Amino acid sequence: MRYFLHLAYDGTSYCGWQIQPGMPTVQAELDRCLTQILRRPTYCVGSGRTDSGVHASHQVAHFDADLPENLPLDVLLYRLRRALPPDIGALRLHTVPAEAHARFSAEERNYEYFVVTQPNPFRRDQALYVDRPLDIAAMNEAASYMLGQFDFTSFSKVKGGENHYVCYCTAAGWHPAPGGWVFHIRANRFVRGMVRLVVGTLLDVGRGKMTPREFQQVLWAQKRVDAGGAAPAKGLFLSRVEYEEGVVPPER
Amino acid sequence: MRYFLHLAYDGTSYCGWQIQPGMPTVQAELDRCLTQILRRPTYCVGSGRTDSGVHASHQVAHFDADLPENLPLDVLLYRLRRALPPDIGALRLHTVPAEAHARFSAEERNYEYFVVTQPNPFRRDQALYVDRPLDIAAMNEAASYMLGQFDFTSFSKVKGGENHYVCYCTAAGWHPAPGGWVFHIRANRFVRGMVRLVVGTLLDVGRGKMTPREFQQVLWAQKRVDAGGAAPAKGLFLSRVEYEEGVVPPER
Repeated sequence: MRYFLHLAYDGTSYCGWQIQPGMPTVQAELDRCLTQILRRPTYCVGSGRTDSGVHASHQVAHFDADLPENLPLDVLLYRLRRALPPDIGALRLHTVPAEAHARFSAEERNYEYFVVTQPNPFRRDQALYVDRPLDIAAMNEAASYMLGQFDFTSFSKVKGGENHYVCYCTAAGWHPAPGGWVFHIRANRFVRGMVRLVVGTLLDVGRGKMTPREFQQVLWAQKRVDAGGAAPAKGLFLSRVEYEEGVVPPER
Repeated sequence: MRYFLHLAYDGTSYCGWQIQPGMPTVQAELDRCLTQILRRPTYCVGSGRTDSGVHASHQVAHFDADLPENLPLDVLLYRLRRALPPDIGALRLHTVPAEAHARFSAEERNYEYFVVTQPNPFRRDQALYVDRPLDIAAMNEAASYMLGQFDFTSFSKVKGGENHYVCYCTAAGWHPAPGGWVFHIRANRFVRGMVRLVVGTLLDVGRGKMTPREFQQVLWAQKRVDAGGAAPAKGLFLSRVEYEEGVVPPER
């Protein structure tokens, strides 16, 4: 039987999602706990990677297991919650159709980037503190130029290792959030480092270093070198993974 | 000249607000930074103490200083923000009338206690995780019996060192909050350990271990021994200190 596990994690102490030998990663912690509770080697597959220091308010992973009869789903979830470290939270656990896949069945991913305009000690590892005013209208004009299908080479890492850089972006904008602003972007896929490079360049627009039209030129240029620096990982959250109909049952 | 400094802090790493020799406290950090920036020994006075591990989303302290002409208020605030550790945030700084006092001019204090019903990795040090349903209606009935003027001996620490235990409570109730519930209590004063003991006992009511009327009997008994255990410090926030009119100017 295949299961989907919905997760949230504070990425501060991890070298990202993906297993890397000898490094603390979220996937490694999850595999360790599943293997311990199910008493056989169990490996999970995530909807996608998150980079070192990046958080998730909603990440999804699948794994295959034959649960013993004395281990109903709610008890497995309870044990996982007890076994996982406090910076990884298990939100929800359910069965899925056999062909469902955490990565390939995902239709859209959402990311959020948080900026606070006053120092906030409770979010010091979960938001970027910006001490000068930002021109949000200009940032939103620039963001709107990403809506639709574009090649995001300009906002990719040099060694991203992707086949192609085309993403279809269906939401991109800054909205008021408690103590500051949040940038929300939704697309069918993201290339590595993309959101942090987009946000870093949008912040340049907000500070008056670049016009919205210049941002558009950077996007169109499909040249990595034209984009601004990447925004720090700590403000970034994978915030929602959306699946094909019939994969994730409605919450009771 | 006397100044009011409005603060927020994550209390996780501190032995509370109040200076204690050799211990990390919020007041000690603040005095250290003020003394360093103003280049003379400077001591602040808080609106009240918070215990070890307790947070503040709004605390107020006053200090006296003669600012040099080349150090306007906004620059002092900027320097304080840079000097303070990331778990202490300076929110606002302004002058006050000479007779204003952070503690004695305060008319009401507000505390909030956060409970989450799903594990939340981002608030693991700022909320209590409760994995069973709570009877919020019963907790609110019990809380309502605290409204008005009562002797809170039952909800005080044995060695609180107070002159008297009478508090006038003008708000006490549980409200929905993101991912769970928040208990809000407002009073003219609080005795030591009071909010954590109140919340611990209200959680007993929510779990069906005590009826709302029994909670009222505990309050009326004025005997410490009848109350339940204290709720953990990590869920508790000093959330607002309110002053006599004319002390805190309206925010621009």
